[in-house]
Amino acid sequence: MKKAVIIVAGGKGLRMGSDIPKQFLPIGGKPILMHTIEVFHRFDPDMQIVVVLPLTQQEYWRTICKDCFFNIPVIVANGGETRFHSVKNGLEKIDADIELIGVHDGVRPFVTTEVIGRCYTKAMSFGAAMPVVDVVDTLRQLPDKEQNSDVILHSTTVPRNQYKLVQTPQVFSAELLRQAYKQDYEEGFTDDASVVENMGHDVALVPGNRENIKVTTQFDLVVGEAVNKNITH
Amino acid sequence: MKKAVIIVAGGKGLRMGSDIPKQFLPIGGKPILMHTIEVFHRFDPDMQIVVVLPLTQQEYWRTICKDCFFNIPVIVANGGETRFHSVKNGLEKIDADIELIGVHDGVRPFVTTEVIGRCYTKAMSFGAAMPVVDVVDTLRQLPDKEQNSDVILHSTTVPRNQYKLVQTPQVFSAELLRQAYKQDYEEGFTDDASVVENMGHDVALVPGNRENIKVTTQFDLVVGEAVNKNITH
Repeated sequence: MKKAVIIVAGGKGLRMGSDIPKQFLPIGGKPILMHTIEVFHRFDPDMQIVVVLPLTQQEYWRTICKDCFFNIPVIVANGGETRFHSVKNGLEKIDADIELIGVHDGVRPFVTTEVIGRCYTKAMSFGAAMPVVDVVDTLRQLPDKEQNSDVILHSTTVPRNQYKLVQTPQVFSAELLRQAYKQDYEEGFTDDASVVENMGHDVALVPGNRENIKVTTQFDLVVGEAVNKNITH
Repeated sequence: MKKAVIIVAGGKGLRMGSDIPKQFLPIGGKPILMHTIEVFHRFDPDMQIVVVLPLTQQEYWRTICKDCFFNIPVIVANGGETRFHSVKNGLEKIDADIELIGVHDGVRPFVTTEVIGRCYTKAMSFGAAMPVVDVVDTLRQLPDKEQNSDVILHSTTVPRNQYKLVQTPQVFSAELLRQAYKQDYEEGFTDDASVVENMGHDVALVPGNRENIKVTTQFDLVVGEAVNKNITH
């Protein structure tokens, strides 16, 4: 089946305390976003890759691609006001004959080709799939009125095996995803699964890989450098 | 106030695919457990430190302490059948005049002295405190009957700001903790908070530090090496 992926890279880098948007920060000397693109290209060299970037970052992106001799063909789409709008812009760039479309965070460079394969395969049969990992620490639920407090006095342990942490790629049949993104934007649309679920379609969960972290803080960058050194491509 | 900490190190190292129990695996060339002990000693050189170790590991521990010229004074207690029994054994070694007792995982070497201080201070006023961190990924709850399935088809996103991930040290007034550990063992006693809460006493949550990971897998060891290199003592 013909596949595509929309890689969303809208970060502005503020949380990192850096002027460079986080997706361009180097891990192992190479911008994070390039690592991410490479995994999908390695998974399927024929898949269509759309990268969504804020308009203001696109020239910088072209420059670093030249500097790094980065030559995996990608289509660039314009970032939107929210993730929903960014994905919508990305969707418009995808060929009509594509049958499966994944949406992936640009700052998740350590997803494995196995996990990508698992998501596309499950989406082929079920229509929608995304990778999750176990909650390894004790999980506690807070009472409503203490959620924004610095000190919480009343909370309860919940069974952590009833919960999973969500990663990307979130993969969908092209028809389902296009249909979902015709909906009007709602505040609850925090990821693509939520957009699709709003139409009444469930999203299957498949096992992810724990290294597939979202690199958003300085700590993640430290972890990312270590993970990168341990990867054997 | 006089303080003590019980450092529980009962790991058998099976999950690591190593013959060496995980608490003895080196980070930066030094066994994890020594890093952990050092942080508490740095926090308060006068605090009493009890390390709970399986009987079979105690000679090995004494040997590596000699080899590493490790000379922070610690009292060794015998590991028990469960964490509950280990902590109970540790408690028996603590001096009667100690007023605040923390319980900490031996394989959490990256807790900061700031977080330790925060827990002991809060426990002084509230009786019980432990550090937590935010859930940074999207969190989904599974239906009961799909919890042990490899592919989950029906799950729902829950508001992640209503949840926190629990770390250690879990710190208590000595009186409260001693009282709590007089209870008969129950299966729900997964951490010290649960033992204390079973008596009807809440445990306050205070902000932890994200680096304070529990080193239990090969991936954690890779992360741990990186975190260790970035710590400036």
